[in-house]
Amino acid sequence: MERLNVAIDAMGGDFAPANEVAGGLQAPRQSGNSFHLTFVGDESAIRQELAKHQHEGLSFSVVHASQVITMHDAPTAALKQKKDSSLAIAMDLHKQGKADACVSAGNTGAVLSASTLILGRIKGVSRPTIGTFFPTESGFCLVVDAGANVDSRPQHLFEFGVMGSIYMKLMYGKENPSIGLLNVGEEETKGNEVALETHKRFKNHPINFKGNIEGRDILKGTTDVVVCDGFVGNIILKFGESVPNFLKAKLKAYAKRSFWNLLMIAMMRGPLRAALKDMDYEEYGGVPVLGVNGVSIIGHGSSSPKAIKNMVLKAVETAKRKVNTEILDALARQANASVTSKQ
Amino acid sequence: MERLNVAIDAMGGDFAPANEVAGGLQAPRQSGNSFHLTFVGDESAIRQELAKHQHEGLSFSVVHASQVITMHDAPTAALKQKKDSSLAIAMDLHKQGKADACVSAGNTGAVLSASTLILGRIKGVSRPTIGTFFPTESGFCLVVDAGANVDSRPQHLFEFGVMGSIYMKLMYGKENPSIGLLNVGEEETKGNEVALETHKRFKNHPINFKGNIEGRDILKGTTDVVVCDGFVGNIILKFGESVPNFLKAKLKAYAKRSFWNLLMIAMMRGPLRAALKDMDYEEYGGVPVLGVNGVSIIGHGSSSPKAIKNMVLKAVETAKRKVNTEILDALARQANASVTSKQ
Repeated sequence: MERLNVAIDAMGGDFAPANEVAGGLQAPRQSGNSFHLTFVGDESAIRQELAKHQHEGLSFSVVHASQVITMHDAPTAALKQKKDSSLAIAMDLHKQGKADACVSAGNTGAVLSASTLILGRIKGVSRPTIGTFFPTESGFCLVVDAGANVDSRPQHLFEFGVMGSIYMKLMYGKENPSIGLLNVGEEETKGNEVALETHKRFKNHPINFKGNIEGRDILKGTTDVVVCDGFVGNIILKFGESVPNFLKAKLKAYAKRSFWNLLMIAMMRGPLRAALKDMDYEEYGGVPVLGVNGVSIIGHGSSSPKAIKNMVLKAVETAKRKVNTEILDALARQANASVTSKQ
Repeated sequence: MERLNVAIDAMGGDFAPANEVAGGLQAPRQSGNSFHLTFVGDESAIRQELAKHQHEGLSFSVVHASQVITMHDAPTAALKQKKDSSLAIAMDLHKQGKADACVSAGNTGAVLSASTLILGRIKGVSRPTIGTFFPTESGFCLVVDAGANVDSRPQHLFEFGVMGSIYMKLMYGKENPSIGLLNVGEEETKGNEVALETHKRFKNHPINFKGNIEGRDILKGTTDVVVCDGFVGNIILKFGESVPNFLKAKLKAYAKRSFWNLLMIAMMRGPLRAALKDMDYEEYGGVPVLGVNGVSIIGHGSSSPKAIKNMVLKAVETAKRKVNTEILDALARQANASVTSKQ
C-alpha cells in the first residue's frame, strides 16, 4: 500500500510557519515515518524554519504558494481573490488526489469554505459541519455544529447528528454512539420550533437518539454526540474556553487577600493544572469538517507545535478510517427509510 | 410611609415550607423589621415551621392557601386548575395591592405565567422576561433572557436589553449600563437572521449598546447586560451551573491517582471554595421577572434559607426602586423615537 500523504497549510495559524513546521515534523517522526507530509506555503519561509530542526530521513516535501489567507480575510472573498493561497493549494492537492487529507490552523471560515467549494459535499449532505470536542466528567463528547452553520433547519441538525455519530464510532471506537439534542428541557414538548421538529426527525429514525439534553449534560457527558445549531455551539464553545481564565482571575483575587492565601494558591497551581488538563482543547488535535468529499482538519489559530502534530496524526487516522464512505451510506439508508415509511 | 409588604409563596421550593420560613424570618430581622412579610400556604405546615424559630417582635403574618403547584405541574394548566395554590394567592395579594411584591422559589414556568397572567404586562412590553446573574472576573452581569422565551424576535430582544439595563441601573447603581448582543462574532455582519436584525435595532436607539459580544465575553464581564434568546440563555446558564461539578469530578479523579495528590486536593478544598464563592448563584438572591406590572422574584428550586432571605430583601429593594415606572417610560420614549425617525 502506498503511503498516505497529508497536505498541511503551513501559513495558516497565528504562529505560522514556525509552529506548523516544528509540529508537522514531529508527526512523521512519532509515527515511524509511516506517511508523507507536504508543507504548502512560502517556500523560503518554510525552508528557513526547516533549517532549525533535525529532519534527516523524515518523509516530507514543500510545495510553494505565493499567497496567504489571513485571520481577518472574509472567507469566500479571500478564496476567490487568493487563488494561490497556501490553503487553496493544499486543498487542491487533496482534491486532485495528490494528498489524502488537508490540515490547517488558519481562518476557520476560510478552511470550511475551501473544504466545501474545492472538495464538494458528500451526496446526501445538505450542509457540511464542524464538530468540536468538549471534555466530560469521564471523557469527552463531540458537539456538532460548533459554529459553521447558523439558522440550521431540522434536516441539517439531523444530518449533523448522523455524521457526528459515525465520526465517534470510527475514530474513537464507540459502539453505537448516543446522540442528544441540546435543548431547554428534557421533555419532548420543550424547545423552540426547530428543536421540536428536529426531535421528531431523530425519533423516527433507527439511530441511538437519547432525546433532548440540557446545557448541564455536556460536561456531564450524558451523550457521545451533542447536536445543536452553530449559533448555540459557537457560544457554548467560547464560553467553555473562557472558564479557565475566569478561574485564574478568581484564584488570583483570592491570593491577593492574604499571604496565607497566596501560599495556598501557589501550591495549588500544579495539581490544579494537572487535574484540569482535559480542559485543554489543543489535546484533541483539531476538529473535523464533516460532510465534504475528503479529509479536512481545522486547528485552533493559536495551535502549539504539539497541537499541530496531533492534527496531522488525526488527519492520517481519519483518512484511514473511511469516515466519508460510511456517511454516504448512512444518509442514503436514512433517505430510503424515509421514503419507505411514507409509502 | 406605610411599611412595604412582601408576599412569599411558602410552599414553592424543594424544601418548602422549611427553608421559606427559616429564610423568610431572617429577612425582616436583618432589615430591622422595616417591612412586613406574608407567608402564603398551608397554614398548619407554616405554623409548625414557625414554631421552630425565634420570631418575637418580627412583622409577619400567614395567609392560608389549600393547594400547591409542584415542580412537575404544567405551568399554565396548573394555574387554571389550582386557583387556591400558594403561588396564585400570593400573586393575587400583590395584584390587589395588599402586597408590594411576590417571591417564590417554586416552578419557574408557573411563577412566570402567574406573574404575566395575574399582574399583566407593562405597556410597551411584548414579552416579560427573566434575567439571570453570571459571575464575571470582576463582578457580575445580567443575562436576559435566561429561558423564559424561545424564538424571540428582534423587538423582544431589544426590549430585554432595555429592561435589563434599567434593572442594572436602578438596582445596582450602574450608570448607563452597557449592553452586548450575544452572537458568534463581533462584526456587525455576523450571526443568524434574528441577531442581524436585532443589532440594527439596538444601533438605531440612544442606548449604551456595545455591539455584538461572544461566548467568552460573559465571564470576562465585557458588558453589564448580555442580551440573548432564552434558548441560548437557558443552555448557557445550565452549562455554567455544571462547571463546579465538572471541576469536582476532575479533582476527585486526580486525587485518586496517588496519596500525595489526595493530600493536595484535600488541602485545596477550602481555598478553592472561597475563591469560587462568586459562582454560587444563590448569593444573588433570586432573579427578577421583568416587564410585568409588579415585583416578582423567582428563586432556584433548591434555595437555601440564606437564598430565600436574599430574595425577600431583593423584593423589598425592587419595590422601592420603581423599576417598572422607568421601564414604562423608556419603552414609550423608544417607541416615540422610532415613530419620529420614520417621519
